[in-house]
Amino acid sequence: RVGSALAESALARHTPLTDLAGFHPWFAQLRADCYTETQQLPLDELAGWRTDADTGDLQHDSGRFFSVRGLDVEVADGPVPRWQQPIIYQPEVGILGLLVRRFDGVLHCLMQAKVEPGNQNGLQLSPTVQATRSNYTGVHRGRAVPYLEFFRGSGRTRLITDVRQSEQGSWFYQKRNRNMVVETTDDVPAAAGFCWLTLGQLHQLLQVEDLVNMDTRTVLSCLPWPGEELASRLPDADDFQASLLRSCSAAAGAVHALDEILNWITEIRSSAEVRTTPVPLRSLAGWQRQDGVIHHETGAFFDVIGVQVQAGGREVRQWSQPMIRPKDTGVIAFLASRIDGILHVLARCQVQPGCLDVAEVGPTVRCTPANWEHLPTGPPAFLKEVLGADPAQIRYDVLLSEEGGRFYRAVNRYVIVEVDAARTPEHPEFRWLALHQLADLLRHSHYVNVEARSLVACLRSLLGSDNP
Amino acid sequence: RVGSALAESALARHTPLTDLAGFHPWFAQLRADCYTETQQLPLDELAGWRTDADTGDLQHDSGRFFSVRGLDVEVADGPVPRWQQPIIYQPEVGILGLLVRRFDGVLHCLMQAKVEPGNQNGLQLSPTVQATRSNYTGVHRGRAVPYLEFFRGSGRTRLITDVRQSEQGSWFYQKRNRNMVVETTDDVPAAAGFCWLTLGQLHQLLQVEDLVNMDTRTVLSCLPWPGEELASRLPDADDFQASLLRSCSAAAGAVHALDEILNWITEIRSSAEVRTTPVPLRSLAGWQRQDGVIHHETGAFFDVIGVQVQAGGREVRQWSQPMIRPKDTGVIAFLASRIDGILHVLARCQVQPGCLDVAEVGPTVRCTPANWEHLPTGPPAFLKEVLGADPAQIRYDVLLSEEGGRFYRAVNRYVIVEVDAARTPEHPEFRWLALHQLADLLRHSHYVNVEARSLVACLRSLLGSDNP
Repeated sequence: RVGSALAESALARHTPLTDLAGFHPWFAQLRADCYTETQQLPLDELAGWRTDADTGDLQHDSGRFFSVRGLDVEVADGPVPRWQQPIIYQPEVGILGLLVRRFDGVLHCLMQAKVEPGNQNGLQLSPTVQATRSNYTGVHRGRAVPYLEFFRGSGRTRLITDVRQSEQGSWFYQKRNRNMVVETTDDVPAAAGFCWLTLGQLHQLLQVEDLVNMDTRTVLSCLPWPGEELASRLPDADDFQASLLRSCSAAAGAVHALDEILNWITEIRSSAEVRTTPVPLRSLAGWQRQDGVIHHETGAFFDVIGVQVQAGGREVRQWSQPMIRPKDTGVIAFLASRIDGILHVLARCQVQPGCLDVAEVGPTVRCTPANWEHLPTGPPAFLKEVLGADPAQIRYDVLLSEEGGRFYRAVNRYVIVEVDAARTPEHPEFRWLALHQLADLLRHSHYVNVEARSLVACLRSLLGSDNP
Repeated sequence: RVGSALAESALARHTPLTDLAGFHPWFAQLRADCYTETQQLPLDELAGWRTDADTGDLQHDSGRFFSVRGLDVEVADGPVPRWQQPIIYQPEVGILGLLVRRFDGVLHCLMQAKVEPGNQNGLQLSPTVQATRSNYTGVHRGRAVPYLEFFRGSGRTRLITDVRQSEQGSWFYQKRNRNMVVETTDDVPAAAGFCWLTLGQLHQLLQVEDLVNMDTRTVLSCLPWPGEELASRLPDADDFQASLLRSCSAAAGAVHALDEILNWITEIRSSAEVRTTPVPLRSLAGWQRQDGVIHHETGAFFDVIGVQVQAGGREVRQWSQPMIRPKDTGVIAFLASRIDGILHVLARCQVQPGCLDVAEVGPTVRCTPANWEHLPTGPPAFLKEVLGADPAQIRYDVLLSEEGGRFYRAVNRYVIVEVDAARTPEHPEFRWLALHQLADLLRHSHYVNVEARSLVACLRSLLGSDNP
């Protein structure tokens, strides 16, 4: 029964194998040992990368990995009806894989302490495997990806989760990664740089700034979540936690039936008139390439920069690549509310240029406040409620990073604010959803965007956790 | 309770309002009255359509409706690794809407007798509404679409089904229509050319050659299907029907858990390396435009032709348009088998060039036998089992048409053949699925293709039916 194993693990803080008192010095030591230097380089000087003579697109010499291209976006009824922007093309479906195993009956996750060039603190906590298709089909000509075989059908394994999910629709064009959780009964040792942690420990680490990386958060969000099993193990839950537990239980119901939620998504996807057209990166209106950097003429939004990475430690590697560098810290927030004793979050179904299927369900608020000065629309709905929240309403408020392999120091403030639903009416793009409904949607691709998935992991981390 | 209302309707053949003894003469009279003439015209002579000077693409003067363009398709590991073909672009999401209403407590469907230029017999039985976005946003400048308001949120209605589904992935590029079923409690009269029929009557009409059109079949397939309620009303079901009833019941289980089915689809979608690139229609390798027709140099597959339509009856209309004319009759078949007393069908998850998301779940066999002479691959798996089936194994075998608004006399033989699963091993692209699993997938977009959806409607029609 995977449900009860997940519940047990979610509440386990100390096991014979691991506790956080041991984890923190181990991680600090690794961070000290893993020498990494990321240096900005002009885009023209990136070894292995070239600027296409016709289009100005940035491509790897192998033709693989990813490229940076231009996109023309038309959203007929949107607040900004047309714009152009650089965007990352990465058509390959990679694997974000979490290997789990029972020790003394308790499920542990094999976590990797992983360096990425965009991380402002070097090392973050990543799933067991984080591999592009180029990684494991040999284009890198590097060493094999450790533990990959468990996600390719070898070993004695049981599949718990396997679903392709989108990534940042503002910066990626139709990118998907395969989020997998696999349980093994093999006697798998943790290699250097890897450690076993329970879900309860990961939940405590989610309270730490900039430690649990985006790939871990999205994989955790795709786990089936055992509301009933957790409730039976937490008889002393306070009123907020009890509402959160009920929210995770399919038996609990919700403001809207799932069919109504699907109808809401279908209506938005059917009526939005969105057209995205690939265009040469060189020709983008409002964007300039100057001194080896691509930036918007207002200085807002993001830059495309080049970096050279030197990573030391057990093995020395050096490489160069383009990255997206956002110009400011963003806010990614759910308004939450107890409705009939069941915690709901106010989700927004919104068009993003990189969506494969028009629009996905996202957070209540997802924005970079500094950008709104440069847009005709004014601040987004509910930003005021988030930024002006009484501290007593704030259930979660932690700075977390986006994927450090493509984004340079992309940090967002992840916030969950509890409000009174009666004073927070649903606009057409917004609906109150229970967590078990988000879990239903998360069994399928293209429904819940990466920012909302991170918030799902953060919200679940409030079950039985306190500050570490 | 919509489940029991659907079950009641599925078993109703004679109601105070309607029976088939009255339907057939009514429909024959309409067919006689609805004068329609479709005449082939060279593509250069279609009023309102032009051939783009640069690309050779066929476009409407308004820029709307649909266009015929070229597509370059690469499927790295496919039997044909690369080809080019004409394909229809129709990015708007239209509505296929079925209005239902209870009379004397029994659910009836408001059906439309509709003429389409591609129908070989003129008139077919269509859902209440069959409208492109251009239809109902006024680009046609025609009269309003009857009953459309019920699908746009007016009247006293309850939504039963609302899901966007794909159409022919071989001929359409990423086309979707919104399949909607809406129940009204308003006193809605059937306008001229419309009639009320029960689901049981539609099931009987599905045994008639070329009568129930594709749009009706796909909408019917998206209805939730009440296995338990039907079983309780059919105590005398024979062994085959009992296995079909169990197959419609979620409680019955199946060979594979739904998570395993999702994993199978995810694996195929993640590993297939498919690239589709729009190219000018004029430049397609292997295709020629000659005497106003676009055809393949082998004479196989399909032609793109022009037609001029004169439709008479209550209102005279005349228009011209391009159409796809397949060169031969196809075979669309499910192998079915009772496994542990539950009927399963052998579904194939297969890449098609027009799929939005790489591949969809389709029939066991979907092919035009005559085309295989021109392909290096030989006949598809299981075609032999279908064409060589003992008549005693054949559960369904009816000629039905594809959408007559885009396809000119596109007729397929829809077949369901019962086999012994033990002698029919699953290849990697094939899995045995119960009907309740197809129903689970059909709540979402992009999982089950239009040919499989037609077969789902045909298979369900075997519940309690006999020849009409």
